[in-house]
Amino acid sequence: MSTLLTTPLWLGGGVTAVPGFRASGVHAGIKRRKPDLALIAADRPCAAAATFTRNAVQAAPLRVSARHLADGRAQAVVCASGIANACTGPQGERDAEEMAAEAGRALGIPAQDVVVASTGVIGELLPMDRVRRGIAAAARTLSRDGGPAAALAIMTTDTRPKLAACRVALGEGGPPVTLGGIAKGSGMIHPDMATMLAFLATDAAVPAPLLREALRRAVDATFNMISVDGDTSPNDMVVLLASGTAGHPPLAPGAAAWEAFQEALEALCLDLALQIVRDGEGARRSFCVEVSGARSDAEARLAARAVTASPLVKTAVYGRDPNWGRVLVAAGKSGAALAVDQASLWLRAGEQRVPLFVRGRPVPLEEALASELLGEDGVCFALDLGTGGPGRARAWGCDLTEQYVHINAAYRT
Amino acid sequence: MSTLLTTPLWLGGGVTAVPGFRASGVHAGIKRRKPDLALIAADRPCAAAATFTRNAVQAAPLRVSARHLADGRAQAVVCASGIANACTGPQGERDAEEMAAEAGRALGIPAQDVVVASTGVIGELLPMDRVRRGIAAAARTLSRDGGPAAALAIMTTDTRPKLAACRVALGEGGPPVTLGGIAKGSGMIHPDMATMLAFLATDAAVPAPLLREALRRAVDATFNMISVDGDTSPNDMVVLLASGTAGHPPLAPGAAAWEAFQEALEALCLDLALQIVRDGEGARRSFCVEVSGARSDAEARLAARAVTASPLVKTAVYGRDPNWGRVLVAAGKSGAALAVDQASLWLRAGEQRVPLFVRGRPVPLEEALASELLGEDGVCFALDLGTGGPGRARAWGCDLTEQYVHINAAYRT
Repeated sequence: MSTLLTTPLWLGGGVTAVPGFRASGVHAGIKRRKPDLALIAADRPCAAAATFTRNAVQAAPLRVSARHLADGRAQAVVCASGIANACTGPQGERDAEEMAAEAGRALGIPAQDVVVASTGVIGELLPMDRVRRGIAAAARTLSRDGGPAAALAIMTTDTRPKLAACRVALGEGGPPVTLGGIAKGSGMIHPDMATMLAFLATDAAVPAPLLREALRRAVDATFNMISVDGDTSPNDMVVLLASGTAGHPPLAPGAAAWEAFQEALEALCLDLALQIVRDGEGARRSFCVEVSGARSDAEARLAARAVTASPLVKTAVYGRDPNWGRVLVAAGKSGAALAVDQASLWLRAGEQRVPLFVRGRPVPLEEALASELLGEDGVCFALDLGTGGPGRARAWGCDLTEQYVHINAAYRT
Repeated sequence: MSTLLTTPLWLGGGVTAVPGFRASGVHAGIKRRKPDLALIAADRPCAAAATFTRNAVQAAPLRVSARHLADGRAQAVVCASGIANACTGPQGERDAEEMAAEAGRALGIPAQDVVVASTGVIGELLPMDRVRRGIAAAARTLSRDGGPAAALAIMTTDTRPKLAACRVALGEGGPPVTLGGIAKGSGMIHPDMATMLAFLATDAAVPAPLLREALRRAVDATFNMISVDGDTSPNDMVVLLASGTAGHPPLAPGAAAWEAFQEALEALCLDLALQIVRDGEGARRSFCVEVSGARSDAEARLAARAVTASPLVKTAVYGRDPNWGRVLVAAGKSGAALAVDQASLWLRAGEQRVPLFVRGRPVPLEEALASELLGEDGVCFALDLGTGGPGRARAWGCDLTEQYVHINAAYRT
């Protein structure tokens, strides 16, 4: 991770912290009681970019949104929660198209400029009468303070809404730009796929092709490096709308302002990604894996993600058990080269470090201290794969508790 | 799966059901109370083959055993349980060599003809004084009835010993051959790696290169198609000793007798593999995934294994929740081609079948019947990937319960 060129100022409000964006969240009746329909709208058409799940099963709203985003332009996002509208055949696709059309009608913009999302149970059809009424209500209640309401309305098994926003100067003398977003995700979360749902906005002026590149880089380093349970969803997407109203010349690659924007975007995504990991289904604690000494960054990513996804590592973190062999062995199955005779593993939390395995040899374990560090949220395993290569990566995961099993054995019924 | 050319007769006793093999299990003191050292010995040198974990981290006994098996010959197997002797540096390798030397001395055979194994906690050194005394005691107590004792002594978190043996005719008029084995495994079990521990024996006459081929094929279709938790161990190995005392001419490829032997070996391995899945840590029920309509068998294997390893599928089986979207989506992340618009999914147990998703469309769910079938041990998801290809595979897994988390949060301490 690089350090930000300009320190961002963190703000409340999530996606509506960005000037020119309004949002709302209402109860349409897909779920019994909770808010289940969110709408985000910009005052004017925006450059738009998105990343989608790489699962071979893609939900209907993703297929529709991909078509709508092909021109690099969008002005609104509508999202239903409670039903995923995935594996729903041609009717599901018609329903997703209709959600975009209804939102466009209510907002007075083309359906083509509406991004559609869904999250929830797979294989059920949306109750379109309720969804239509919900979209109308959401359009009526759009407001400049609606970010938190929208964040609530996209939740499924999440226990907390997830919002982040920051303001950053892109260069000397220029106007500040604001970036904000909301996200949901608690289970079915694993790297190597796009991610869960996140809707991001900015008033920066960024041409659509550059916006796509910026989003891809930010997602790869943040949302794509978290894991809750190794499972992936057919509904994952991250959408970024850039209105260009901040008042600076459009960003161009290579310039300092471009780097500053990229770093602020990555900081925003990382903040939301860590909120997701911390709210992992049943999770008590999050943890970090820092891999070095890999042959390449790509292999470091593989190893780091394998550790965050290992049920045996996750249960050891839950039990505060410094059973470090599980970390080494999880990296060993990842496909990344691992020179076990030269590998090292340390445990780190804040300023404190405990060696577990140094240059291929176990060291006498400081059991009490190691167990104490494992009790800290965000505790980090620092693993040197021992190949002598320059590859590095960071990934984030959460512990696995009885509560995860309970939630997922009972979720649908 | 093909049907056996000759129906095997199933026997008790495990590895010692095979004439000419003796075994024992003793308490050496690696664990506090339970038997923790097993010895298996043939009356004469045997052709030998083995498969080892593909984890980049290999335990010391595997490195030693690979060297000892390089000549395709072995006469005994010694196994310690409680400590894995993995990630133990040069001292660990010296300890594994010494276990082979001690066993060889006690049996009056070269150390080179002894296969060494360990299973248990990673990163700790073996208490070699106790191990030495244990090997001497195991050699004194070797017996023709010792298969069950050896099966007990290789257990870690297993709740049941795992034994299987069968006798089969390889052709008309020829003598029958016997195949037998013991296995352990309950957690850290996932396909794509060799497997857990299994020690197999036969009195068939099979040249070592052919024996390796037969074992590789059998392991790929059985042990490599089970999953308990997606994690793999640095200690996994399957060893097969063939004494050649059954009294038939050595097997040659292509002949009916060779096929009969291969099928009997696969049946033996499958029996032990299913015992492992059924005893998965905390598991209540096992389940099966039959994939068809894949572009190739390799892709069918990928998809089947991804479903058995999915925490969301495993918790749904535990909760008897016919949340079939999770099955489709787990296959969708496997990398296998999946034509979702043509895919189908059925649930099957015994004679009863319930359609869940047919040719890309959800069907009205027979909820009560589906939930009932999910309560059956061995319930099967039959998934057609919809590509129209000929690829097929079967894989086996178990449900994920709160008990798995409890066992693994507390295992080491």
